[in-house]
Amino acid sequence: MKVSFFIVGLGQIGSSLSLALKRRKIAHLILGKDIKRRSFYKGIIDEYVEEIEEGVERADIIILSTPAIEIINLIRKIAPFLREDKILLDTGSTKKEILKEMQKHPDKILIGGHPMAGNVRKGKDAIDENLFEGKPFFLCFPNENSKNGGRIIKDIVRGIGAIPYEIDPESHDQFTSVVSHLPYVLSVALYSIFQDFQRKEKRIKDFVSTGFIGSARLALTDLKMAEGIILTNKSNIIEKIEIFIRKLQELKNKIEKNEISKFISTVKKDIEKRRKIYENFRF
Amino acid sequence: MKVSFFIVGLGQIGSSLSLALKRRKIAHLILGKDIKRRSFYKGIIDEYVEEIEEGVERADIIILSTPAIEIINLIRKIAPFLREDKILLDTGSTKKEILKEMQKHPDKILIGGHPMAGNVRKGKDAIDENLFEGKPFFLCFPNENSKNGGRIIKDIVRGIGAIPYEIDPESHDQFTSVVSHLPYVLSVALYSIFQDFQRKEKRIKDFVSTGFIGSARLALTDLKMAEGIILTNKSNIIEKIEIFIRKLQELKNKIEKNEISKFISTVKKDIEKRRKIYENFRF
Repeated sequence: MKVSFFIVGLGQIGSSLSLALKRRKIAHLILGKDIKRRSFYKGIIDEYVEEIEEGVERADIIILSTPAIEIINLIRKIAPFLREDKILLDTGSTKKEILKEMQKHPDKILIGGHPMAGNVRKGKDAIDENLFEGKPFFLCFPNENSKNGGRIIKDIVRGIGAIPYEIDPESHDQFTSVVSHLPYVLSVALYSIFQDFQRKEKRIKDFVSTGFIGSARLALTDLKMAEGIILTNKSNIIEKIEIFIRKLQELKNKIEKNEISKFISTVKKDIEKRRKIYENFRF
Repeated sequence: MKVSFFIVGLGQIGSSLSLALKRRKIAHLILGKDIKRRSFYKGIIDEYVEEIEEGVERADIIILSTPAIEIINLIRKIAPFLREDKILLDTGSTKKEILKEMQKHPDKILIGGHPMAGNVRKGKDAIDENLFEGKPFFLCFPNENSKNGGRIIKDIVRGIGAIPYEIDPESHDQFTSVVSHLPYVLSVALYSIFQDFQRKEKRIKDFVSTGFIGSARLALTDLKMAEGIILTNKSNIIEKIEIFIRKLQELKNKIEKNEISKFISTVKKDIEKRRKIYENFRF
């Protein structure tokens, strides 16, 4: 399989995808575009193109790897002139709003994707051809026609070492709001409280240790990406914050009544079964 | 400096302390006791003693490394017959309640300690002679007499590579409730919500990724240790949960009004200055 790609958005996902497609001999040509200066991408893509139109015309598969809001804008811009034999795939962190836009173009092959990979690193440090290895790569098909591109996209996903995982966009955004977007909000809130205390008492920074660092580090998430996620998965995220507040109130009541032991031991028993995943985890 | 030690409680802290004291030639003899079977401790301590009284009599320095509640019980038991030239140090995660007990024995040298080290590993995996390297080792002195042991304890702390840090027990428990105990409660609550969702929808486990693992892993904390912390730092922890709930409500309101950008960028700007600490962090 030798295909040409045009990747718009050369952040961690776009750049890592490009390297994975090149090194694993899936791509014979990778064109790229980003808002940042082109010199940064030497060795990551084959050729930088200035105009979206040029990339779309020359590539077989177009991959949108920008933050979610920009993905929606790009679909609006690209879909009307996309040839019917080309495939457009996005890699955005949320799927419902993006799929809603894709559904407006039933004659084109548009596929929603989300590789469940990535970390808070940035710049060259963040780019890793093995980033997708063993990770699920969620795929949403907005309509029957889009499924025509399903076989080749699944082959490509397997080719970069990831596991294709078909899902409806509503379930996708529901699940990610629990395991991904809620933890982000908690990290931001925790770090913000730490900031508040630090203003009053400088010594608190000397107490920062493993627990805090592990719990607060998601606050390093790229801002544009975080904003896109919050805007395009707003109702799910708000609901999860409400659920979390109720859970904290429950824990607080149990702590007040000295009845917390049973609660924490039920949680411990379950997470203990997965200890190896959590213990050996490296960001 | 060649001193003999008796370490009660041979979990991660007690065992790592023993190894550090042996390998760095600070101890000429380490006696130990734990509730678990003695064979486990071969190579970690020099000699297992069955009776607390025997260990206290034979050692120069007694170190209590059990969960916080048991530390208080042990001080009650040991302090009355402790010779006045011996030093008793604890390594509990909270200090106020333990120091309250120590203050009842003004004629003895009792010192509150807390090495800000440790992780969620367990068993032999958790034991590490370099665990304290570069970490603060908090020290609280319950009365004037206890300061007589201060010089030698500080030398020992430096000897194992840690940094002695004198602090009053109230500030200690306040700061740790923000950076350590609150993150633990958040991890438990997050994992509990994940469990609730998993009961309804098995697919959610396929979405677990870096963000969730980093945020939930503190729920692996040893139960007895967690219970001791919650019981002996209850009011601080409850107060921090309340502060966290208010912070979440603030974030939720801003998300609802599409006004979250400024908030997350203020947090990001600050944590970004410390990126290297958070990025290169290894549990």
